[in-house]
Amino acid sequence: MNIIRIEAPDDPRTAAFRDIRERDLTGREGQFIAEGEVVLRQLVSAASRCRPAAVLLAENRLGGLADVLALSPPAMPVYVAPQAVLDGIAGFHLHRGILALGRKPDVAALPDVLAGLPRTALVVLACGIGNHDNIGGIFRNAAAFGADAVLLDRQCCDPFYRKAIRVSVGAVLRTPMVVGLDATAAVEALKAAGFAVLAMTPSAELTLDAVPPAARIAVVLGAEGPGLPADLIARCTPVGIRMSGGFDSLNVGTAGAIALHHFARRA
Amino acid sequence: MNIIRIEAPDDPRTAAFRDIRERDLTGREGQFIAEGEVVLRQLVSAASRCRPAAVLLAENRLGGLADVLALSPPAMPVYVAPQAVLDGIAGFHLHRGILALGRKPDVAALPDVLAGLPRTALVVLACGIGNHDNIGGIFRNAAAFGADAVLLDRQCCDPFYRKAIRVSVGAVLRTPMVVGLDATAAVEALKAAGFAVLAMTPSAELTLDAVPPAARIAVVLGAEGPGLPADLIARCTPVGIRMSGGFDSLNVGTAGAIALHHFARRA
Repeated sequence: MNIIRIEAPDDPRTAAFRDIRERDLTGREGQFIAEGEVVLRQLVSAASRCRPAAVLLAENRLGGLADVLALSPPAMPVYVAPQAVLDGIAGFHLHRGILALGRKPDVAALPDVLAGLPRTALVVLACGIGNHDNIGGIFRNAAAFGADAVLLDRQCCDPFYRKAIRVSVGAVLRTPMVVGLDATAAVEALKAAGFAVLAMTPSAELTLDAVPPAARIAVVLGAEGPGLPADLIARCTPVGIRMSGGFDSLNVGTAGAIALHHFARRA
Repeated sequence: MNIIRIEAPDDPRTAAFRDIRERDLTGREGQFIAEGEVVLRQLVSAASRCRPAAVLLAENRLGGLADVLALSPPAMPVYVAPQAVLDGIAGFHLHRGILALGRKPDVAALPDVLAGLPRTALVVLACGIGNHDNIGGIFRNAAAFGADAVLLDRQCCDPFYRKAIRVSVGAVLRTPMVVGLDATAAVEALKAAGFAVLAMTPSAELTLDAVPPAARIAVVLGAEGPGLPADLIARCTPVGIRMSGGFDSLNVGTAGAIALHHFARRA
């Protein structure tokens, strides 16, 4: 294990971890910052599609992470610093005491991802989701219900943003995805690939229970508030979730979870 | 309409709105602060169990709220202030520009609430939920699926905390609730009232689809991470949500939503 002690916040070896919040806003070319033990375990797990490039730990966290670090590449730098130095590098008090620098997977194109899906498949297409909590929740639920891929249109925020990864409990790191899509083109590509494309929208008359069975299902989710654009819904089968009537309001991630639970393969 | 112009942040008439964040931490005896238009609309709606005591608005929000204010008690003070004065009162930049002071409903006792439930009933019992986002999400989902009441044990955080109300989209203000319960006593009271008491827990062998029908259903939710205590689960019927197997992780509010959707009355 390549343990390197860091004594000063301006040590150039930890430059990638510096001023995290400011650099969250600009993004990191091909890389991302993950935080906390649960996410680090996902990052180094066999199911991860990402690779760890380095970790930076508070001194008191090193002992508890031996099993995780044993799964990491032996040459990977494990920077260890006193809490105050760690906070100085990050630019805020990092109470979790665990940061990892990861490398994103190669960018995937929609036709390639669709071509690689099994005959029975479940995917999510998220459109215009600009909230990192909701993007993280969508990935968490996609992983929980075994969705084969998550597709994001170009109005969605970056799923590799630190908070989105954290809210996803690391699911962002393991779930096949395509980002930056044109929503209309994605819907048409899904239909051409034999998917029943279901636009989740509160106004739909067809409810989940009444959706005809299909081997390939795509669940399309839009932003809370505006919802999916009418012209996109018109290209899909609109589907609603039966609610009580007096208070028809669900978080978008929650609505997606209910749909994914409904359509998940009975293993 | 009782519109009162406020020109200075230290105007004593707006004392109840002062230093909101600090006072969030101590609670407000019998009162709460709500923020934003969506929550204000819930507060003054016919379904609300709470009453508005006063509102404080940024000048530019007054025009758009005429219909909401018309539903409020005519004598209720409508304080209107320039944005800078509003920010000075609240102690932070209040970009929503809308605050309301509300009165909580009378405290309810569990036997009274149970005695008032219909023969076919759906309730949530939340145990040890210390996260305001999760409490808010549980109330939002309870309202969406027409749950008759939400019961909180004494380890849950305050549902009238400002952020919990906001995340609930105002559902906290309309949903019958009992707070401060002993979880074990609440489970036993539910059983005595003829409820099938279902402890949602990932380890359960019985999944939602296999739960026998019952007229009265109580969904018991525990905190993410620790989950429900084993001795409490032993008093209930443990129920799980079928997941993909590789990533068995759902947010507690999301798990509750899936269960409530499953058990909600087919209207």
